[in-house]
Amino acid sequence: MKKTNRVVILVHGGAGSKTAGKAELGVLAAALEAGLSLLKAGGASLDAVETAIRILEDSGRFNAGLGSLLQLDGRCRMDASIMEGRELKAGAVAGVENVRNPIRGARLVLERTPHVLMAGEGGTRLARHFGLEAGELPTDQSLRILKKTLNARNIPVRLFKGIYRHETVGAVALDESGTLAAGASTGGISVMLPGRVGDTPLIGAGTYADNQSGAVSMTGRGETIIRAGLAREICDHLINGRSPKQAAQKALKRLLRRVRGEAGALVLSRTGDFALLHTSPFMCGGYASHRRRPVVAARFGRVR
Amino acid sequence: MKKTNRVVILVHGGAGSKTAGKAELGVLAAALEAGLSLLKAGGASLDAVETAIRILEDSGRFNAGLGSLLQLDGRCRMDASIMEGRELKAGAVAGVENVRNPIRGARLVLERTPHVLMAGEGGTRLARHFGLEAGELPTDQSLRILKKTLNARNIPVRLFKGIYRHETVGAVALDESGTLAAGASTGGISVMLPGRVGDTPLIGAGTYADNQSGAVSMTGRGETIIRAGLAREICDHLINGRSPKQAAQKALKRLLRRVRGEAGALVLSRTGDFALLHTSPFMCGGYASHRRRPVVAARFGRVR
Repeated sequence: MKKTNRVVILVHGGAGSKTAGKAELGVLAAALEAGLSLLKAGGASLDAVETAIRILEDSGRFNAGLGSLLQLDGRCRMDASIMEGRELKAGAVAGVENVRNPIRGARLVLERTPHVLMAGEGGTRLARHFGLEAGELPTDQSLRILKKTLNARNIPVRLFKGIYRHETVGAVALDESGTLAAGASTGGISVMLPGRVGDTPLIGAGTYADNQSGAVSMTGRGETIIRAGLAREICDHLINGRSPKQAAQKALKRLLRRVRGEAGALVLSRTGDFALLHTSPFMCGGYASHRRRPVVAARFGRVR
Repeated sequence: MKKTNRVVILVHGGAGSKTAGKAELGVLAAALEAGLSLLKAGGASLDAVETAIRILEDSGRFNAGLGSLLQLDGRCRMDASIMEGRELKAGAVAGVENVRNPIRGARLVLERTPHVLMAGEGGTRLARHFGLEAGELPTDQSLRILKKTLNARNIPVRLFKGIYRHETVGAVALDESGTLAAGASTGGISVMLPGRVGDTPLIGAGTYADNQSGAVSMTGRGETIIRAGLAREICDHLINGRSPKQAAQKALKRLLRRVRGEAGALVLSRTGDFALLHTSPFMCGGYASHRRRPVVAARFGRVR
């Protein structure tokens, strides 16, 4: 395997109409630090992505892991996915309950089963079988948010429109062996219909990694991301010679035009070039590399 | 909307190492006839795809709908998806139980919810809520097959390798308004881990339709199809000017090379050109158009 000293990691904490606070940016910086030191020590991009996402899940500051919002029935169902670009190995869980770190569940599916996606009960049982830590979910905070939302809004009308809070988390990384990885984790839409699955656990929609093109992690309105097939589309633009910025711009413009979508993208090419772009007013996230200490921000380039 | 008299429909009944019998080919021909007459009468491609797949589900001759195989726990969980190419609307269900026609469940998600994918309990509840007919599942036949398999095989070893029977069904169609549609339905892998979800309900993996490129329905080893992001990849090749045959060949060769995958593809372009190709020894299916009565066969072009 060809070794370089070029390592890169990008993370995000969701795209939407709300700006992130100091606390969220602090957690994003910590996730970047942890992933970067792992990469600098020669670690695998898959481990860097998992580690960064676990820190975001554990923070309780995003709609993922311990910070997950609740579905309409008061239960907390979470989705996550992870993929590496050398052999295109992937794992994902959808609708798992009472698991502290869904990203570890996704990693388990990748490592320990011949499958890619385990949903519902089956995914939860797999996590339990392999001894993943249970989360104390739903948390008091998430129950308070559900109650407040149910009291404040006209649910029968709003339900089918969805009450979107985009605080999904994600990461992409390139390690010194030249292997790319991508991952994502979410608690879903707040007060959503039980059973709804968004783009986060879907390989090719929310997450994709291929050493021959690039690594992508998406966030935003999951349904529009699925319909556009965004992560896979961005990788196709990369393989056709476009830069990460051009690839993300082209795909996000199609998203706006064809499905009036809303999304943010982390895009990392196999040479270590990258872009953070979004169609929403804000996307919090950041980047770090062998030559750059972590940089975090509440917005990057907006595509219209 | 520009009207043409050019209408086309393609169906398949799965790819694998086993050839289809006369009965299966007869059902495929009937599904083509029904879809074609609908298209000839000016019907929508979405309706033609749904109708064709319902006939395949109802036949009990394929691993979908009433013919669905059972998971390891003796329960029957089914997946289906459907998509149209004008507005990129899509709907899918994963792991639904006791629903006679999962493809109707997918259509419901498309028509009646703001979501794309409903999984597990939530999907089953949605089908029930909208009054979809329940299936008498598991059937005596599927229980016999499960028992026989569990007796005949060394399950602890085979379980994680999966006991693959590829009899997923799918269809793609082009209507006179120039709108493409694609769909698929499956009972999953026989004796599989409860909760495993394959490519069938995943937009971009097993199913994709976009009037600007084409309509694709995949079958085969779902995990490899997901990892390659096949349906979306074939559409990307179409949009870059390749013919359906070239697009399918290029994507299936990447599948073989990168993930040692096994798959069959129905590919239909926006101009009505099409291809049926597979990497497996067999794929049963057929095609019909405004100028051609249904043609069915147990194998088409094999890509190596």
